[in-house]
Amino acid sequence: MNIPSKHIENAVDQIASLPGIGRRTALRLVLHLMQRSEAEINDFSNAFIEMKANVNQCSTCGNITDHEKCSVCNDERRDQTTICVVEDIRDILAIEATESYKGTYHVLGGIISPMDGVGPSDLNLDSLISRVATGDVNEVIFALSPTMEGDTTNYFIYKKIREYEIVISTLSRGVSVGSELQYADEVTLSRSLLHRQPFKM
Amino acid sequence: MNIPSKHIENAVDQIASLPGIGRRTALRLVLHLMQRSEAEINDFSNAFIEMKANVNQCSTCGNITDHEKCSVCNDERRDQTTICVVEDIRDILAIEATESYKGTYHVLGGIISPMDGVGPSDLNLDSLISRVATGDVNEVIFALSPTMEGDTTNYFIYKKIREYEIVISTLSRGVSVGSELQYADEVTLSRSLLHRQPFKM
Repeated sequence: MNIPSKHIENAVDQIASLPGIGRRTALRLVLHLMQRSEAEINDFSNAFIEMKANVNQCSTCGNITDHEKCSVCNDERRDQTTICVVEDIRDILAIEATESYKGTYHVLGGIISPMDGVGPSDLNLDSLISRVATGDVNEVIFALSPTMEGDTTNYFIYKKIREYEIVISTLSRGVSVGSELQYADEVTLSRSLLHRQPFKM
Repeated sequence: MNIPSKHIENAVDQIASLPGIGRRTALRLVLHLMQRSEAEINDFSNAFIEMKANVNQCSTCGNITDHEKCSVCNDERRDQTTICVVEDIRDILAIEATESYKGTYHVLGGIISPMDGVGPSDLNLDSLISRVATGDVNEVIFALSPTMEGDTTNYFIYKKIREYEIVISTLSRGVSVGSELQYADEVTLSRSLLHRQPFKM
C-alpha cells in the first residue's frame, strides 16, 4: 500500500500498532476519521492524552481508578478480608458483572509465562504478599485462567502465602453451565468427575 | 460493562465509535494503550490531529494529498486525458497497486444509495463534469463496485457526460482470474458468457 500522504501514513501506522489491527483495517479507520470535523478529531485524540494523565492504578490492588484508591478498595460495604487474584482489569469487570462477589481484588498485570518472557518479578506480586502479611486477610481466591500458565502462577503464589493462616481457594472448574456434555473436552470432563460435588436441591 | 474510570470510559467510547469496533475490543485496545508511555500516547494522539490539519483533498480529483494537487494529477508522465472514476481513495490504492493504469482518477466519495440516504448531490460529481466539459478529456472509465448502487451511479454519470465526445467505458466483468468456475455465482457466469471475448494467445 503506497499511501500518497505521509500524515495519513503516520496515522495508519499508529492505529496498526494496536494489537489485532492490520494496516488494511487501519487505513479504513483512518479514512473514516478523516471525514470527521476538526473538533471531533480533537476530542478523539484528547481522550487518550487525558486518560494517560488522569488514570491511576489503585495503590492497594492495581485496579484502574481516577483517584488514589479504586472504588472497590474504598467501599466499606465490601469484605476487605477477601482478596480475589486476577490477571487483568478485564477479569475484574467480568466478575463484577456477575454481581456475586463482595470481596476485593488484586490485579497481577499478567501471569507467569516463560514462553512470553514473563517471570514472577514482572507481576504485581510483592504488594499482594504485603497485603496478606498484614494479617487482615482471611481468604485469597485464585481467579486466573485455567491454563498451564495460570496453574503455574497459582502455585507460585501459593508457595509464597501458605505460611500465613488464611484460606486459599481457586475458582471451581468443571463443565460450563448450559453447555452440552458431549462437547466438553476430555480434561475438563475428567476433572469435573474427579471433583464431583454433593448433589443439592 | 461498568468501567471504574470515566477517562477510560471516554477513551473506550471514542475507539468504539470507529466502524466495526465493539466496546469489548475497544476496551482491550484502550488497556493496551494505557501500558504505553506518555510520549507514545502523545505521538498516537497527535498523529490524528496533524493528519486532520495537513491532509487535503486534491482540488482536481479528490484524492488525498499533503499538497494542493495530488501526486497523480501533478505527474506529467501520466495520461491526463483519461479519468478513472472511483468511489473511494482505497480504490485508487488498489488500482495503483496493479501498476497497470497510467491515467488520472476522480474520487466520488460514495455511490448513489437511496437506502443509505446518499443521493447524487452528496457526491463529488460537479467537479467531474467540469473536468469533462473542458474538452481535455478523451476517456472516462467507470471503476465503481459491480453492484446495483454502482450500476445506478454509472448510469447517472453516463447521462450527464454522454453529450461530450468522449469514450465512456467500465471495468470488464466476468469470472475472477484464478478462481474455480463452479464456484462463480450465476449472474457473473451468465454475464461473462454474454460478454465473451475473442480468444487471443
